[in-house]
Amino acid sequence: MVDYIGVSDVARIINTMGAGEFIERLAQQIEADYQRWGQFEKSARLASHSPVGVIELMPTSDGTLYSFKYVNGHPKNTAEGLLTVTAFGVLADVATGYPLLLSELTVSTALRTAAMSALAAKWLARPDARVMALIGNGAQSEFQSIGFHRMLGIRELRLFDVDALATAKLERNLRAMPELDDLKIVRASSTAEACRGADIITTVTADKCNAVILTPPMVRPGVHINAVGGDCPGKTELHADVLRMPDVRVVVEYEPQSRIEGEIQQMPADYPVTEFAQVCSRQVAARSSAEQITIFDSVGFALEDYSVLRFLHALVQEQRSPRQIDLVPALEDPKDLFGGTLGGQRRATLRRVS
Amino acid sequence: MVDYIGVSDVARIINTMGAGEFIERLAQQIEADYQRWGQFEKSARLASHSPVGVIELMPTSDGTLYSFKYVNGHPKNTAEGLLTVTAFGVLADVATGYPLLLSELTVSTALRTAAMSALAAKWLARPDARVMALIGNGAQSEFQSIGFHRMLGIRELRLFDVDALATAKLERNLRAMPELDDLKIVRASSTAEACRGADIITTVTADKCNAVILTPPMVRPGVHINAVGGDCPGKTELHADVLRMPDVRVVVEYEPQSRIEGEIQQMPADYPVTEFAQVCSRQVAARSSAEQITIFDSVGFALEDYSVLRFLHALVQEQRSPRQIDLVPALEDPKDLFGGTLGGQRRATLRRVS
Repeated sequence: MVDYIGVSDVARIINTMGAGEFIERLAQQIEADYQRWGQFEKSARLASHSPVGVIELMPTSDGTLYSFKYVNGHPKNTAEGLLTVTAFGVLADVATGYPLLLSELTVSTALRTAAMSALAAKWLARPDARVMALIGNGAQSEFQSIGFHRMLGIRELRLFDVDALATAKLERNLRAMPELDDLKIVRASSTAEACRGADIITTVTADKCNAVILTPPMVRPGVHINAVGGDCPGKTELHADVLRMPDVRVVVEYEPQSRIEGEIQQMPADYPVTEFAQVCSRQVAARSSAEQITIFDSVGFALEDYSVLRFLHALVQEQRSPRQIDLVPALEDPKDLFGGTLGGQRRATLRRVS
Repeated sequence: MVDYIGVSDVARIINTMGAGEFIERLAQQIEADYQRWGQFEKSARLASHSPVGVIELMPTSDGTLYSFKYVNGHPKNTAEGLLTVTAFGVLADVATGYPLLLSELTVSTALRTAAMSALAAKWLARPDARVMALIGNGAQSEFQSIGFHRMLGIRELRLFDVDALATAKLERNLRAMPELDDLKIVRASSTAEACRGADIITTVTADKCNAVILTPPMVRPGVHINAVGGDCPGKTELHADVLRMPDVRVVVEYEPQSRIEGEIQQMPADYPVTEFAQVCSRQVAARSSAEQITIFDSVGFALEDYSVLRFLHALVQEQRSPRQIDLVPALEDPKDLFGGTLGGQRRATLRRVS
């Protein structure tokens, strides 16, 4: 039997623990995993493109556990009432090859992305950062808000989205959370207005095109930019001139992947970047001055999905009766697949799903 | 909600329909899919190797449906009471990227491999073939036996395995099936003895090494060899001289993959092979004479997993209440992932798994 975590299980975990604590504890797991970066097998994702979207498989392994995520990206889905991104993932035992856990990762990817964003900002942003502009108020925006409130101490959030209904939805959801009582929420009428006075600028927009969300005049010295939305070839959010501003440090997850998928796809191959693993293991200083502009050019890396799958698995294993599915046969005699499943001696495999 | 097919569901389907009918109908699906070979996106599998085994992801797509299979290969598992190979797979909608079906594929891979083997033999073996040698009597051997009895009219099966207990298990399972009443079962004391008088030789052994199961003296003119067990780099079953015999035709599934993983990995890159798609679409004659030796150098291709996932999905969709899992959120407002799953408005997502 394989452990199973569905959307309802994640909802129950979050409703018990609180999204802020979940994100903070998950960020600790992600940080610990990035600190042993060298142990992970890294490969670019395996993508299947169609005219309307992409389906990707993102595997990794640390030699003990193997994980992969299935994730799609279909920007036109929203118009049909569907999610742009859905995801699920599997954790498996490298020693036997058996899958251990199947988990939803649509909600969990939003949680892990927020955890990764806040973790990177904890290293890169100025410690006195309290005001964040949040450009793009769609499916991921609440998670980013909660993560930065909890882990960075953000106390003013300046919202903008081309879709005013999305901003209203975000504000409504945030105001419904008692733990965000000390958070000032400001609706801005443009990206430029949202960025005014911001210490951190988070862009989490979804168009599959080279958009220009941020331009140099919006970016004052000392700002940290958390660029989340640009995450595949042809999908960027920053004007290339932002990347060319003086005293800019760009941090990425896995350089070979980010050169193809990140904001830096707009730059020549020798444009200097730093991998986050070097920052969080203190091989490279995070920020050189209070005036430096730092950019976390996030595209999402398989290690972060590995981390969230491990974190979720540990949480459900603490429960008395985690849900399980009969995804793999349990046999008395491994050479008797036929008899053990289809013949007379099937016992364990015919137990119903809990 | 995503449809779910576990081991118990496959067992129920097979116990209702019969393994022979399942394999034959599945072979028709596989044949129809190979006949539209050009429509499929093909790529080599994505493998993660460890010292004790391999975990692979095998995706494909025909532009309408996307599928992938997770499969491991750990030869040492048997000694620990575990299966050498386990697998599961997913069928997804290319238009939306949403997963439609999660299914076990351990039992189903054995069924689809048997269906593919029998399908290839239907095209390649002599029509009067009635005697089959079956070398390797492990997890896949019953499925191969049933497929060749049903689809080729095999009436004598000559068994050999280095593990006599495996042969005893196979014979016991086969003798328990009323539909195989007309099948003569002979236990041989060696591969050479098993091959004596055989019209078809099926090798389905599992060692992860360059084994030499078949040598030229065992192969008489007109024989069809169904070489199933050699399916990854460094894992072969045929002596290279068998491939060098005069008047041999080798048929493979997907040439670029088979050059790396099949028996032909022992041959130079220009060794002539024919892809099965050309055979079953009548672009190339299957067999040139009754004396020709034909070899189906099978390694398993993603298209066959696509076929079995589609076939299984159609079967469970005929049922009144297929099992489903909450692997993907169902939202009122796709921009409100947070509110729709973790906030107040979660309804559909909190329904329990059926």
